[in-house]
This record gives sequence, C-alpha cells and structure tokens, in this order.
Amino acid sequence: MERVVRHFQEELEALQARLLEMGGLAEERVRAAVQGLVTRDTAAIERVIRGDEPINELHIEVDSRCFTLLALYQPMATDLRSIVAAVKINTDLERVGDLAVNIAEAAQRYINHPPVKKLIDIPQMGEIAQLMLRDSLDAFVQRDTTLAKQVLSEDDRLDSLKTLVFRDLLACMLEDGTIVEPALDLILISRHLERIGDHATNIAEDVIFMVSALDVRHLPPAEPTE
Amino acid sequence: MERVVRHFQEELEALQARLLEMGGLAEERVRAAVQGLVTRDTAAIERVIRGDEPINELHIEVDSRCFTLLALYQPMATDLRSIVAAVKINTDLERVGDLAVNIAEAAQRYINHPPVKKLIDIPQMGEIAQLMLRDSLDAFVQRDTTLAKQVLSEDDRLDSLKTLVFRDLLACMLEDGTIVEPALDLILISRHLERIGDHATNIAEDVIFMVSALDVRHLPPAEPTE
Repeated sequence: MERVVRHFQEELEALQARLLEMGGLAEERVRAAVQGLVTRDTAAIERVIRGDEPINELHIEVDSRCFTLLALYQPMATDLRSIVAAVKINTDLERVGDLAVNIAEAAQRYINHPPVKKLIDIPQMGEIAQLMLRDSLDAFVQRDTTLAKQVLSEDDRLDSLKTLVFRDLLACMLEDGTIVEPALDLILISRHLERIGDHATNIAEDVIFMVSALDVRHLPPAEPTE
Repeated sequence: MERVVRHFQEELEALQARLLEMGGLAEERVRAAVQGLVTRDTAAIERVIRGDEPINELHIEVDSRCFTLLALYQPMATDLRSIVAAVKINTDLERVGDLAVNIAEAAQRYINHPPVKKLIDIPQMGEIAQLMLRDSLDAFVQRDTTLAKQVLSEDDRLDSLKTLVFRDLLACMLEDGTIVEPALDLILISRHLERIGDHATNIAEDVIFMVSALDVRHLPPAEPTE
C-alpha cells in the first residue's frame, strides 16, 4: 500500500509539473503576443499564431494523466479535489493559449494601420494577466489560498483597466473616424486579456476549493469589517 | 454490489437531469437576451442581467454531485469519463449563463441609440448558438457521437456569420461615424454568441471523448474521402 501511495504522490507531482510547464508556455505566449503588438513585429506575431502545438499536446497529455490517476488510485478527499482541479486548470490553460492566438491575430491586423496614439493601458493589462496566471499556478502548486485570493483582487484591477481602455478608444473613434479599424482591434485585444484574467481567476477559485473545500464562486463579496 | 451499481446509475441519471436543467436555463437566457435586443425590451433585458442565480446554484450543486460520485463509487472507464465530462460541461454551462448576461449588458447600451440598420445576422447567430447548446446536451445524454459531430460543423457556420457581422458593421462604422457606439456593441454581442458556440463545441468534444475515448481536440480536420 505504501508503494501505491508513493506512486500516487509521484504521479501527482509529475502532473503538477506538466501544468506548470503549460502555464509557463501560456504566459510566454501572452507576453510574446503583447510584445509583438507593442514593437509591431510581424515575425514575432506570426510565431504566436503558429505556435499553439506544444500547449495543445500538453492539454491532451494532462487530461490523460488525470484519468489515469483517477482510475488507478481512486483518490479521496484532497487528492481527489486536486485532480479534479487539475482537469479544470488544464482546460483554462488551453484556452489561454487560444487567447494568445486571438491577440496575435488582432495585432496582425492592427499593425497594418498607423498606430492609434499610444497603446493606452494594454501593455499594463498584459502584465497583470501574466502575473495573475503565474500567481494562480504558484498558488495551485503551493496550495496557497492567500496567494489565490490575491489573484481574485488582481482581476478587479484588470476589469477596471478594460473599462478605461474601452472608454478611451471609444472617445478616439468618435473623434476620428479613420481609426475605427485599429481601435476596434485594440478593444478586442483588451477583452482577450480580460478573459485571460478570468481564466486565472477560475484557477485561483479551484485552488481555494481544493485546499479548503470551500466554494467561493458565486459568493457575494465579504462584508468589510469595522 | 448490485445495489451499489444501481445507486450509481440513479445518481448518474440525477446528475444528467441537473445538467439538462442547467442547459435549458442557459439556452433560455441566451434566447431572452437576443429577443430583448431585437424587440428593444428594457424589462426583458434587465431580467436576464439579474437572473443568473439559478444557474449559479446548479453549478455548485452539479460540482458537488460529481465529487460525491467520484468519491463514493470510484467509477471506472466510461462511467469515470462521464463524470469528468459532467465536471467540464458544468463549467461550460455556467459560462454560457455569464455570456447571456454580457449579451444583455451590451443590448442595454445598444437600445439607448437609434437602431443600426437591421441587426444583420445576429438573431440567426443566436438561433444557431441555442441549437448547438441543445444538440450538444442531447448528444451527452444519449451518448450520440453523430449528433456531437454535427455540433462541431454548426460551429463553423457560427464562425462564418461572426466574420460576416464584423465586416458588415465595420463597413457601416467607416461610412457613418455616428453609429460607432451601437455598432461596437453589436460586434461584442456577435462575439459573445460565438463563444457560446465554442462552449457547445467543448461539450460536443467531451461527448465524443466520453463515448469513444477518442480525443478529437486539436486533430486536423479529416481528409475528404474520394
């Protein structure tokens, strides 16, 4: 039995390592897509668009590892919650990879036009989204609910920036009809970044559930204490 | 043992019934949001924005049922795949509920402006998205991979319509700068509908995996036969 338990822990660690690898790839792809937009680098943007394969392969591998762990070891309690969390996190990371492609596609269209003033708060949104991804995965591996909760509050910052970007670009479009196309692509990019933040938020919520078996989704925000 | 097996099947059926109920609610909310947009019905739109609670409650209940089934019965093979599929489908349906809110929020802004010509292909996109949701859940309950594959091809139609809507509205915005705001909201609505189609596609892919243990995600399209 001890041997089985040790195997399970080893397999669980291997699974976590794969998820971290996926998270690193996803974060790097988001960074590269935003960087390609900022530097107007066609080749870099192309690489993001064509580079989805490694994450997709890991997506299938992680799912298969989760099934094997569930079927062979029939884990209970925290171990069971960890694996179900891994199934969900795997889905979230795969979507983040897709969103990096969406950002790169919009960036590709965007750089065919003259730049729309500055890129407003989009580079900052990109940094927050990457940070949220990293923190949510660190929280998963370290079972750190404090860090997970920090991710939830970072998401509020990202949402506020998205709203600012939207208003700012809308004002630009209303003032100057010739920038409608590129401004629209920036709006789409800011929404893709917001969705990446939503995926990191999902991961953080799964971590809180995994560690504490407490479902924080759909709860009203806590009342402020005196 | 026979008693345990019967219980498991009963519990699995109860789980499926809950998912169908959630799917019905999600579909109805998408329908109501698009209908509110078409008829410019503020009250109906408000109801969609405020009406997320029942899906959110089901979301937590379904997750909890999945954990109980995994922990108590330690299912194998197809049964295990069914429950992991249910975990994923549950996530997809909850997001569809959120997207109905997003559609209603954009519709609420939209109807503050004079209408942008016709609503282009958006009502049709709404119908396809609802059909895809219904078909993907029917495919889940009936373990029908043919129907699931049909959902995947419906998604191509939805994507084409989204591209048409985008081009059409972009042309309108370039021609008449005063409609930038409402046209932008229609573009966002078409993207929300496209994402609902993506969630139905995820469900259909999970059904194919559940039934055949074949992972169709990230596969290149099949070669046409002679």
